Amino acid sequence: MSDQLKYLLDEERIPKTWYNLQADLPQPLPAVLHPGTGKPIGPSDLAPLFPMSLIAQEVTTEREVEIPEPVRDIYRMWRPTPLYRARGLEKALDTPARIFYKYEGVSPTGSHKPNTSVPQAFYNKEAGITRITTETGAGQWGSSLAFAGALFGLEVKVFMVRVSFEQKPYRKAMMETFGATCVPSPSTETAAGRAILERNPNSTGSLGIAISEAVEQAAQRDDTKYALGSVLNHVLLHQTVIGLEAEEQLRMADAYPDVVVGCTGGGSNFAGIAFPFMGNALRGGRQVRVVAVEPAACPSLTRGKYAYDFGDTAHLTPLVKMHTLGSTFVPSGFHAGGLRYHGMAPLVSHAADLGLLEARAYNQLECFAAGVQFARAESIIPAPEATHAVKGAIEEALACKRDGVARTILFNLCGHGHFDMQAYMDYFAGKLTDQAYDEAELAMALAGLPSVAA
Amino acid sequence: MSDQLKYLLDEERIPKTWYNLQADLPQPLPAVLHPGTGKPIGPSDLAPLFPMSLIAQEVTTEREVEIPEPVRDIYRMWRPTPLYRARGLEKALDTPARIFYKYEGVSPTGSHKPNTSVPQAFYNKEAGITRITTETGAGQWGSSLAFAGALFGLEVKVFMVRVSFEQKPYRKAMMETFGATCVPSPSTETAAGRAILERNPNSTGSLGIAISEAVEQAAQRDDTKYALGSVLNHVLLHQTVIGLEAEEQLRMADAYPDVVVGCTGGGSNFAGIAFPFMGNALRGGRQVRVVAVEPAACPSLTRGKYAYDFGDTAHLTPLVKMHTLGSTFVPSGFHAGGLRYHGMAPLVSHAADLGLLEARAYNQLECFAAGVQFARAESIIPAPEATHAVKGAIEEALACKRDGVARTILFNLCGHGHFDMQAYMDYFAGKLTDQAYDEAELAMALAGLPSVAA
Repeated sequence: MSDQLKYLLDEERIPKTWYNLQADLPQPLPAVLHPGTGKPIGPSDLAPLFPMSLIAQEVTTEREVEIPEPVRDIYRMWRPTPLYRARGLEKALDTPARIFYKYEGVSPTGSHKPNTSVPQAFYNKEAGITRITTETGAGQWGSSLAFAGALFGLEVKVFMVRVSFEQKPYRKAMMETFGATCVPSPSTETAAGRAILERNPNSTGSLGIAISEAVEQAAQRDDTKYALGSVLNHVLLHQTVIGLEAEEQLRMADAYPDVVVGCTGGGSNFAGIAFPFMGNALRGGRQVRVVAVEPAACPSLTRGKYAYDFGDTAHLTPLVKMHTLGSTFVPSGFHAGGLRYHGMAPLVSHAADLGLLEARAYNQLECFAAGVQFARAESIIPAPEATHAVKGAIEEALACKRDGVARTILFNLCGHGHFDMQAYMDYFAGKLTDQAYDEAELAMALAGLPSVAA
Repeated sequence: MSDQLKYLLDEERIPKTWYNLQADLPQPLPAVLHPGTGKPIGPSDLAPLFPMSLIAQEVTTEREVEIPEPVRDIYRMWRPTPLYRARGLEKALDTPARIFYKYEGVSPTGSHKPNTSVPQAFYNKEAGITRITTETGAGQWGSSLAFAGALFGLEVKVFMVRVSFEQKPYRKAMMETFGATCVPSPSTETAAGRAILERNPNSTGSLGIAISEAVEQAAQRDDTKYALGSVLNHVLLHQTVIGLEAEEQLRMADAYPDVVVGCTGGGSNFAGIAFPFMGNALRGGRQVRVVAVEPAACPSLTRGKYAYDFGDTAHLTPLVKMHTLGSTFVPSGFHAGGLRYHGMAPLVSHAADLGLLEARAYNQLECFAAGVQFARAESIIPAPEATHAVKGAIEEALACKRDGVARTILFNLCGHGHFDMQAYMDYFAGKLTDQAYDEAELAMALAGLPSVAA
């Protein structure tokens, strides 16, 4: 049992509760502020955007939050996901490290996103909502919400960052196959979109802009709420099924991680794999190093400021304290569209501020090289986002080799690259570059952060 | 246990042997003939193309053929594959039928093909071969052999039918990610390819042509053998892991199929799901209806002749008795490229001739409609090939509804459609047609069948 390649759990072992890091933090999360008054907001301020059950999950400090049975029933379609021992990669690296990865690409949309789109659709449906708006970058979130919307009979409207909309027509086809509507952002459908297009008719869009559009439409109609695919506490909460399952699967292998690695865009898949282990350590259990890997072209944790900022470009959202590059920062068009966000989840940012994690930034080309090495060794083609986690895990494994130590490494392979083969083709053809950001532009975006007494 | 959505087996339950239908046939398979002499061929006639171990599997009448441990070890990457109860589809159809499907899309290349590419690569490696040539239609076989070649350190050269090479660049990218070489067929690299191009410089290619090219190159070099992704007895044998696992998983659900449905191109995924159940019935066990679904545009079982024919266009292969449209028949460019072959596996053809199966043909548009209905109900987007099996299963379920009978239906979902989203986009845009074949062309191809005293 302890020497398998793949560790599967029975359906009955899908966790019955999500794990909430807020219960174990040595210091509570900084408050969310109202952009007008600068005072902490209350649940009613968020009510136009989210159902009360999700707002309650946003602020709760309960350690275990029950997963509703109908959500667990749908999880059973693809959960528990497999945990693999990366023997091929270990051999290719000639490392003494034991590498494990949790593979979320087996979900119906090929990524970890349905872990939260399903409960979000469930709670909205329960609250009598009939329509949900959202934004999407690479399209993994949009297609996952479309999938969940189809299950619960909810209308889903997706604003897709224009550069991805054009690069990835197949993700739009997938959303439409599930019955959702998908438009490129900035669009002419919203005041936020029109304002951007007036200033720059060729805008390639950004997650910050798409969020503004989705929030604007949700706020206008009583039957409509907004859903976010990352960043918020309740989203990270839902993703902890990943780490909770991994913990049990590692037990089958008589293993516990010395290092946990995840890639970070908004922070949700990273939190999903890392928070349960971080929580064990905070409660006096075994210590673990936690490594967050972000793209060097959008380095909110390693180069951003830990400050109050808006979640969107048009400044329709409340102010949250997070590692941010500034809400006006527009990341370059690198291929890991899911990591192209100016901010970082407040919970992940707070954990970083408390020294609970290490952050690293890697460039696009070295991440694709890691992705190809992984594909040849493990026969799964990672999504461009996931190649960042692969790169981080490889670096950890090589460190084990240098140190002659057999550490146990766990990382999250958050999605497959089947819809990203154009990126791999471009990589093989030598057409990709590292897409560094502009230092002056970053300085300007940081200078424009709202001044708030934190 | 009996009311799950998904039935998983432990790795240890991967079958230890493949099932060989030849052991239970009431009449043996007609002999394979030498094209020159018209006499039955012996193993040595096939030796230039295949290692002896595979030739032995081609002719054995042993019921159980051992799966080598190294092959089972690799199977563990994705096997046992899940068996799903199609509750969503049952609900959408409002049918009393219980529908189960075996999902082979979880393999590293997204289809059932690695079930045979892995053992084929293993036996070639064992025989000291360093290079394998093959053909591919939609690219699922080529990428699967590329994957297996990477595992065993074999060089892989793939001739890809030109129309698919152009329609599906991402499959080529996948082959290259695994380190294989892929060229469009007809190519100028072989005499067979050059002859076709001389007659028709714009030839879109066919599996028959691509086979000729791959066979020609394999026969020329001692270090090189040829591998076929379907049709041959040993290929069908390897695919029986599908049905053997399904049988055990259905036992977990206290179920046994009344009807088994598969799509047929060369016949291998169909044989994989159906032969173990057919064998049970032949040995006096429970009877089962077996339904083979083929594309109306390439209807070898329903419109072809059961006769001796060549497997390829250039007539380099031996003569086998099979349902065939004639080796000069070039199917139209419909999207289920994996079903675009002029012949049918001799074992499947023989079973049809003995009345052990029913064959049906469906058109492209009704199959895509079934695929979209399935995707909305079950959240998995089927490959265009697999939509034929879906359509067949839906028709069976609707018959249950008409008859008011709760039959148990099992079908094989042989692959996902992630690399076929362009076809879905074209379908949504109303750009697809039924691509009927030309009756006169078929008559001519059938008239050209070799005259052999059978």
